[in-house]
Amino acid sequence: MVLDRRELIIEAAAKSFALFGYKATTMEQVAKIANVGKGTIYTFFVNKEDLFQEVLDRLIKEMRLVAESVIQPEQQFFDNLSDVLERLLEFREEHALANKLSQEVREISTQMAQEGMQQIEKAIIHYIREQVAAAIAKGEIKPCNPEMTAVVMLKLFVALTADWKKIHAPLTKQEVAAWFRFYLQGGLGLQAAPAS
Amino acid sequence: MVLDRRELIIEAAAKSFALFGYKATTMEQVAKIANVGKGTIYTFFVNKEDLFQEVLDRLIKEMRLVAESVIQPEQQFFDNLSDVLERLLEFREEHALANKLSQEVREISTQMAQEGMQQIEKAIIHYIREQVAAAIAKGEIKPCNPEMTAVVMLKLFVALTADWKKIHAPLTKQEVAAWFRFYLQGGLGLQAAPAS
Repeated sequence: MVLDRRELIIEAAAKSFALFGYKATTMEQVAKIANVGKGTIYTFFVNKEDLFQEVLDRLIKEMRLVAESVIQPEQQFFDNLSDVLERLLEFREEHALANKLSQEVREISTQMAQEGMQQIEKAIIHYIREQVAAAIAKGEIKPCNPEMTAVVMLKLFVALTADWKKIHAPLTKQEVAAWFRFYLQGGLGLQAAPAS
Repeated sequence: MVLDRRELIIEAAAKSFALFGYKATTMEQVAKIANVGKGTIYTFFVNKEDLFQEVLDRLIKEMRLVAESVIQPEQQFFDNLSDVLERLLEFREEHALANKLSQEVREISTQMAQEGMQQIEKAIIHYIREQVAAAIAKGEIKPCNPEMTAVVMLKLFVALTADWKKIHAPLTKQEVAAWFRFYLQGGLGLQAAPAS
């Protein structure tokens, strides 16, 4: 019973944040949607930030499941990674909460919405970093800084998808994967460069 | 005399766009700053857009000179390129007009300010593309799509500078150049990958 009410509140908060954004969501509103008294919320969550963090943690967990579901152990590292990145960015684009937060950041730069978006991006980078570290350990790619490589991979992927289609016809999923591999796996140098 | 007045008007417009942005700049204001009658402006420029384009063209020409001044013919392609990218992004960041336009895009999303920023980005990509095409012709790098490679290089560079420092201690100029080369020259693959 207690657990159910906590769940109800979290679901109501997720709805409210996704519909109205962080700033415009109030504890009253969440109470109304969850059909509980405002006092009840405070028995579970200290304040709106606390509730927001819970909702965000769930979104991030959901993203991890989405990413895991895409990985095929028999596939090469670079192919798995472009599949994962494609799904994660799609997920972020389609997810109502992530969408609303990014709109809120653009339009009224709410501090917490910005922090929320950063947490989502960090979670993506964190997930890629784990994959990179595993690939280094298995000898699939050169030793490198996994965190930086994760940032580079995410940004390269965004360059080949979102950035590219702002000025050119969008690439197909297969083209994106091929170019991703072309630039990051083989490199542009004619001979193997010293490992920096 | 005629040329001087045209110059005066362009300089006044550049000042006004940089101070007040595209939207808030009026032909009256430009006339006042240039100390000419409003009618005089129309003998040289059809409308505000036309005047804006002239100011933008000059900014882009200036960027090209800045880029050219950085290139050292005896340096390797990748080193020249990170020097050029560093200077161009610095230039864009420090330039009052580019700055004001990017603020205008963020805050009130003026259409023309957005187009102006896109023209500046396209000019950077265009310049890199020329360098990439020359490097392919000289056999310094693998054959590749110069336009896409230019987009990838710009975004990778931004990832190593602006994006990275949002979440970590900023890299030194030397580190950025070394990582830029590490990822794009040698690639992460353990053996040379097939050319896609």
